[in-house]
Amino acid sequence: MAYRSISPSVIRRLPRYYRFLEDLKASGITRISSSELSKKMGLTASQIRQDLNCFGGFGQQGYGYNVNLLSTEIAKILGLDKPQKLIIIGIGNLGRAISTHIRFDNKGYELIGLFDQKESIIGQIVHNMPVRSMDTLDEFCKENHPTAAVLCIPKESAEAISYKLVKLGIKGFLNFSHYDLGLAYPGVSVENVHFGDKLMVLSYKMNNNEN
Amino acid sequence: MAYRSISPSVIRRLPRYYRFLEDLKASGITRISSSELSKKMGLTASQIRQDLNCFGGFGQQGYGYNVNLLSTEIAKILGLDKPQKLIIIGIGNLGRAISTHIRFDNKGYELIGLFDQKESIIGQIVHNMPVRSMDTLDEFCKENHPTAAVLCIPKESAEAISYKLVKLGIKGFLNFSHYDLGLAYPGVSVENVHFGDKLMVLSYKMNNNEN
Repeated sequence: MAYRSISPSVIRRLPRYYRFLEDLKASGITRISSSELSKKMGLTASQIRQDLNCFGGFGQQGYGYNVNLLSTEIAKILGLDKPQKLIIIGIGNLGRAISTHIRFDNKGYELIGLFDQKESIIGQIVHNMPVRSMDTLDEFCKENHPTAAVLCIPKESAEAISYKLVKLGIKGFLNFSHYDLGLAYPGVSVENVHFGDKLMVLSYKMNNNEN
Repeated sequence: MAYRSISPSVIRRLPRYYRFLEDLKASGITRISSSELSKKMGLTASQIRQDLNCFGGFGQQGYGYNVNLLSTEIAKILGLDKPQKLIIIGIGNLGRAISTHIRFDNKGYELIGLFDQKESIIGQIVHNMPVRSMDTLDEFCKENHPTAAVLCIPKESAEAISYKLVKLGIKGFLNFSHYDLGLAYPGVSVENVHFGDKLMVLSYKMNNNEN
């Protein structure tokens, strides 16, 4: 795939472009210049041109970018047009916040199951879906073939549960568990979320008066 | 400050080094070679040497890194030795997860207050602290001088509340709200957390078989 040549740092910025373009679409805007886009996004116009040229997202002189085309192209690069079946493991406060507040269908996923091991949580309806028992995970995966999982469980349980999930066919994790999944399963895709790291970077910025 | 010369990408990796070094300290390890550290962290040894040399964190030939010194140095760079007073705004599921599961004292913060506007949440005790009414925010800030805030509120309320908080002396935000704070207050430090962006990057990785 040609997409492989796009640098990881550009890939990390694409979701943000995608969000802005979708907002523009929603407000009926069909084209935008790199300088308008740069004002909205707080990036320089040349940065934007550089980023988008990476994959042939060329603006036209005097016309700018076609919002619809550009957004569709970015969605394709990110694979949002080929939804992965997703399950969420751990429906404590964090898992509940994520299942309730995040739209998955416009981010490349179809949410198909919620799991927890706590008796008091199993059977609850969260965002129109029953929380299932971890005991039914095997059966569920064999029937429904999820490929992605969000891990909202403590570090201590993450090792055993991720091992199990990989054997059941999970190929990608959004990992809140602080367990170093990427190292454990070299063939599996992982995005780690460390709130603590974000806090430490914020501390640095505050101490150095950076935005 | 000399620290200003450290590149943003190195700064973003420092919290991860810090976590690993603190784990080593906790297990009684006092020194480590760059090759051992690289195995543990899944980075190359040369990447590690490059990163740490940036600020004079030199390993010694045949000795490696002094875990304690290196960790203390990174903590200083990140400003963890000068704790900021922190408040959390919005104690729904996400705010609750964050106030309960995150240790702030080793990340450069002292958590001093929780706020919400919902009658049913105000007065609850979360992690040994009462949830205060948003109506008392002004008074609280004037008395206690928090400098950092975690925003766990929806995009719609973020604009008004962040404006208020900046006027009350908040200089840094960990922002879960999806409202583009950085653009609105150029002088204020912001770290944004977008779960959705992470999901889209994961989708890309899964589609391109990347870790």
